[in-house]
Amino acid sequence: MQKLPKAVRRLIEKFEALPGIGPKSAQRLVFYLLHTPEVHLADFADKLLALKRETVMCHLCHNVAEQDPCDICQDKQRDQEILCVVEQPLDLLAIERSGKYLGNYHVLHGSIAPLNNIGPDQLYLRDIAKRMKNSSGELQIKELILATNPTMEGEATALYIAELLKNDNFFAEKIESGELSITRIGHGLPIGADIEYADGVTLARALEGRRSL
Amino acid sequence: MQKLPKAVRRLIEKFEALPGIGPKSAQRLVFYLLHTPEVHLADFADKLLALKRETVMCHLCHNVAEQDPCDICQDKQRDQEILCVVEQPLDLLAIERSGKYLGNYHVLHGSIAPLNNIGPDQLYLRDIAKRMKNSSGELQIKELILATNPTMEGEATALYIAELLKNDNFFAEKIESGELSITRIGHGLPIGADIEYADGVTLARALEGRRSL
Repeated sequence: MQKLPKAVRRLIEKFEALPGIGPKSAQRLVFYLLHTPEVHLADFADKLLALKRETVMCHLCHNVAEQDPCDICQDKQRDQEILCVVEQPLDLLAIERSGKYLGNYHVLHGSIAPLNNIGPDQLYLRDIAKRMKNSSGELQIKELILATNPTMEGEATALYIAELLKNDNFFAEKIESGELSITRIGHGLPIGADIEYADGVTLARALEGRRSL
Repeated sequence: MQKLPKAVRRLIEKFEALPGIGPKSAQRLVFYLLHTPEVHLADFADKLLALKRETVMCHLCHNVAEQDPCDICQDKQRDQEILCVVEQPLDLLAIERSGKYLGNYHVLHGSIAPLNNIGPDQLYLRDIAKRMKNSSGELQIKELILATNPTMEGEATALYIAELLKNDNFFAEKIESGELSITRIGHGLPIGADIEYADGVTLARALEGRRSL
């Protein structure tokens, strides 16, 4: 039985290790690359090396950026009194694309998932409270939007963050007095969806989240 | 609207250029890589660079290999009188996996596709005739198996090669005398298939290719 050259097999392994790429796709990708000019491969390799070298994590919001603090955290035009907590940089990007949010962000880089050994300490979660106060220790944020995914892990993470703040005397008082609100992003039917085909949990959430017209 | 860091966007573009990877998958892959250690990226880059550097094309069969001539062409145990023509190295690999073929190969690196501007001269096709003779100019090959894909392009390529040889006096004589046969790989129902769901062309081919039990 003929074996593939080592260099080919090793690159196939690299592609296979990526999420959503199976052995067959990995093979196809590598043989496609074999037909491309060598400069193209060198360019691809360059871009891979540049990925981490030319990006930083913003120490404030933990988004991936070209500089620290990132463009969003530096932008004084944005509403400094709203903070939106998301799981991943791609979630932030999706919300930015909607064009409907002009506050700041906080990227957790994951969600609480005990089955995968990810607890609160594996996430950028502890510094949310600090970001909610200004340098003189006064309340900076008026609304904290918990925009984690509507999955079991995302829900648990949102609840955990809400509880964390409610158990802190400073924030509990502010919530009590109405100076601070903690909200969860709205759930329901996505636009363009068909009620007939919606799952029960989504429909239940859509009914719960009904609004007067 | 927040933009992705340049390094992230550029790598997304590289992944998007690969066959079968759309913009969303490319984004997901790059953000996955952002969470992997930098040594992993360096390793991936290394493997990309090694792909062309550490492989050669066998000058005889045009397969991708670690040395020239490749392991198959060097293997004197293999039947030197059968030559199997395939479109791509992956086709060769699939036939090797079947374990049923012990002759030599010839990789065309494509098929005749006028719509994509690929004619016979863009393929490793002209040297088939030369490989069919030995160093003293005598017929070396007894059977030429045309195992191009059962697609329009593959069929056209197989026909073209057959015609090329039949129009050559030397080979035409050998075919006439029965010393050389040119065959096409068998077509029909794949094993495990269901006649009910088979397409008409496949069924027609399966009927044409029927054998006595």
